[in-house]
Amino acid sequence: MNNQDKIIEIFKKMPGIGPRQAKRMVYYLLSAPKDTLKKLAELVGTIQDDILTCQMCFRYFSKSQIKNGDDSICSICRNPNRKKDTMMIVARDADYESIEKSGVFDGVYFVLGGTIPFSSKNAEETVRIKELLNILNIRLKEGLSEIIFALNATPEGEHTTNIVELRLKEKIQKPIRFSKLGRGFSTGTEVEYSDKETLKNAISSRS
Amino acid sequence: MNNQDKIIEIFKKMPGIGPRQAKRMVYYLLSAPKDTLKKLAELVGTIQDDILTCQMCFRYFSKSQIKNGDDSICSICRNPNRKKDTMMIVARDADYESIEKSGVFDGVYFVLGGTIPFSSKNAEETVRIKELLNILNIRLKEGLSEIIFALNATPEGEHTTNIVELRLKEKIQKPIRFSKLGRGFSTGTEVEYSDKETLKNAISSRS
Amino acid sequence: MNNQDKIIEIFKKMPGIGPRQAKRMVYYLLSAPKDTLKKLAELVGTIQDDILTCQMCFRYFSKSQIKNGDDSICSICRNPNRKKDTMMIVARDADYESIEKSGVFDGVYFVLGGTIPFSSKNAEETVRIKELLNILNIRLKEGLSEIIFALNATPEGEHTTNIVELRLKEKIQKPIRFSKLGRGFSTGTEVEYSDKETLKNAISSRS
Amino acid sequence: MNNQDKIIEIFKKMPGIGPRQAKRMVYYLLSAPKDTLKKLAELVGTIQDDILTCQMCFRYFSKSQIKNGDDSICSICRNPNRKKDTMMIVARDADYESIEKSGVFDGVYFVLGGTIPFSSKNAEETVRIKELLNILNIRLKEGLSEIIFALNATPEGEHTTNIVELRLKEKIQKPIRFSKLGRGFSTGTEVEYSDKETLKNAISSRS
Repeated sequence: MNNQDKIIEIFKKMPGIGPRQAKRMVYYLLSAPKDTLKKLAELVGTIQDDILTCQMCFRYFSKSQIKNGDDSICSICRNPNRKKDTMMIVARDADYESIEKSGVFDGVYFVLGGTIPFSSKNAEETVRIKELLNILNIRLKEGLSEIIFALNATPEGEHTTNIVELRLKEKIQKPIRFSKLGRGFSTGTEVEYSDKETLKNAISSRS
Repeated sequence: MNNQDKIIEIFKKMPGIGPRQAKRMVYYLLSAPKDTLKKLAELVGTIQDDILTCQMCFRYFSKSQIKNGDDSICSICRNPNRKKDTMMIVARDADYESIEKSGVFDGVYFVLGGTIPFSSKNAEETVRIKELLNILNIRLKEGLSEIIFALNATPEGEHTTNIVELRLKEKIQKPIRFSKLGRGFSTGTEVEYSDKETLKNAISSRS
Repeated sequence: MNNQDKIIEIFKKMPGIGPRQAKRMVYYLLSAPKDTLKKLAELVGTIQDDILTCQMCFRYFSKSQIKNGDDSICSICRNPNRKKDTMMIVARDADYESIEKSGVFDGVYFVLGGTIPFSSKNAEETVRIKELLNILNIRLKEGLSEIIFALNATPEGEHTTNIVELRLKEKIQKPIRFSKLGRGFSTGTEVEYSDKETLKNAISSRS
Repeated sequence: MNNQDKIIEIFKKMPGIGPRQAKRMVYYLLSAPKDTLKKLAELVGTIQDDILTCQMCFRYFSKSQIKNGDDSICSICRNPNRKKDTMMIVARDADYESIEKSGVFDGVYFVLGGTIPFSSKNAEETVRIKELLNILNIRLKEGLSEIIFALNATPEGEHTTNIVELRLKEKIQKPIRFSKLGRGFSTGTEVEYSDKETLKNAISSRS
């Protein structure tokens, strides 16, 4: 396998990149200016150096956001204006980013790192359940009173919610609220083309 | 304009039919068996004869559904098992049919006959507001206590809900509940790709 | 089955119309003005009355195009400016119409009435082979020297060309030219995404 | 701009990569194993080292293909079995690769490095016209007798063909053949939906 094929193999591992697209990217690299290549190589090699994983919510964050002191906790988790009584559980970084961008949530997050496939025998290996259970006591001391599951409205998302909720309930003694994102009509949904599940949810969650 | 062009003109008025599709349909007619044409002509000419508009909910229904007695009221409105305390307002027949099919609603309906465009100066002319106000007293005597707006989660759907709700509130003295289909994640919605409105609704309607 | 369902069944037989579209068309009919329905019924019932099939090329044409005399021959076949030395064989009326619209052909046509499926055991029953053989002598007397096959560049199109060409060659004694539409790059074709067949044809037909 | 944003900027320059896809790729990098990152960085930094540009056809090729001797000429150009009498001009590497894969051409290539936009005032700056004129004498001595333009069947492709052909004709004294990929029906083209240009080409290139 020559070097081009080796890069193609790595590009193909990225989500959303197929063999044809991987090849087009390699062609770009072949004809790119030398210093673009040098810069890209350097950035790829060091991207994780600048990135830390928050030891509370497990989202990625940039070292540069931390001015002094402890660098194990991210800017959201150390922000005194964020409400510590509500923790939202999401699958991936892209999910909490979408919610942050919308500005509709001011609690804290926990990033599971993925969803649990139906075929998975060991949920702990596919998502951060152990890590979630570990930080739970700290969150409870901070006044945690509600955990919101914000996973995709897909079978795997619901499966993941169910399993993680079960594990949390086994561990938590205090009475705290467990909730899920509301179901109903999302923007643009049309009555005529809605599935039974959505119609049922939209009627029972009418307001 | 020859006869083919005349048929094409009528076909083009049907929703979802463009000029090319209209032409393909005419070609079908040109080569169809004589008795298919005869049957189709007869059915088209008489389709409205068999169809009545319910004078309570204004949905279309077939005369054949009515065995005896008054034929101005449809089978849903005269069904003693349907709960008369809840009336769902929909834009079109296809909408209530979708809800009936899902089996998640056992109240009665009112079919507006469309939605109100933003540009419309006279809402009464585009949808059945007068008819709705007319039947209101009967529904109230039957025990109506909630009106659910089940319009598409689109700007025109919400606009229509707002205007019709206003007209109803001007008229109704009794305290009855006005509700709308719940907003949130519909089946398949993904957190990463959700718009702000949907995220906001899904968080505030969490359960 | 009620009348609505009967119309839906007929609409569904039309090319390009599925069950959902058929239903939308019926809803249109239910709410259409009475006289639109009456006009449509009349047109559907009489559309074939006004239409003749040309006994030379078998395309449909309107009686109204024929001012006087024999109404068995269409305006293209009786047009003295059309070159009778070239006959183009097409599958359907929509095909010759597309070619007429482009204005790039001034010979005469023959409409097969369809293509021959690979599964068909009796080609004569699916397309107008007998009719084609019947009119051949007249065309030859008129000076026919070339037959162009203008079928889709699909397996079934090529299969049809092959079978019809074979039948014609069995019958025709005179040396006449048999040709097919040229293969190569159609408008918009890109080198990178072309299949082997198209590249091969484009190179061998380079000019 | 932090390092993630810097990588996103570079990814966005690649053909077919938008901002969302660029971000997904960065998330992949953030969670990828350290040694994958190291390998990718190394490959990106050195990909051009292994790659040479053939001084005859200007396609990219891998050093590893050249066992000994001169490394300025690629394996196709030095292959004695390739016919030197026909040179095919393509826009990009991906184009000649598609043709090589199809196995329908055994001459030599010249890669222009792109197409000439209609807005371009200086064609020489956008594609390798000078380089093409430079190698021409060598090709002519090798017996070049035909130049095939194999550009996309798009306005910009034809524009590029026209300009490059003009430049070549100004320079070449000998009578050589200039040809273009044949136009007509590509695989799957349907008569009914063909544009005028394609129908015209398909009729005039009939065979």
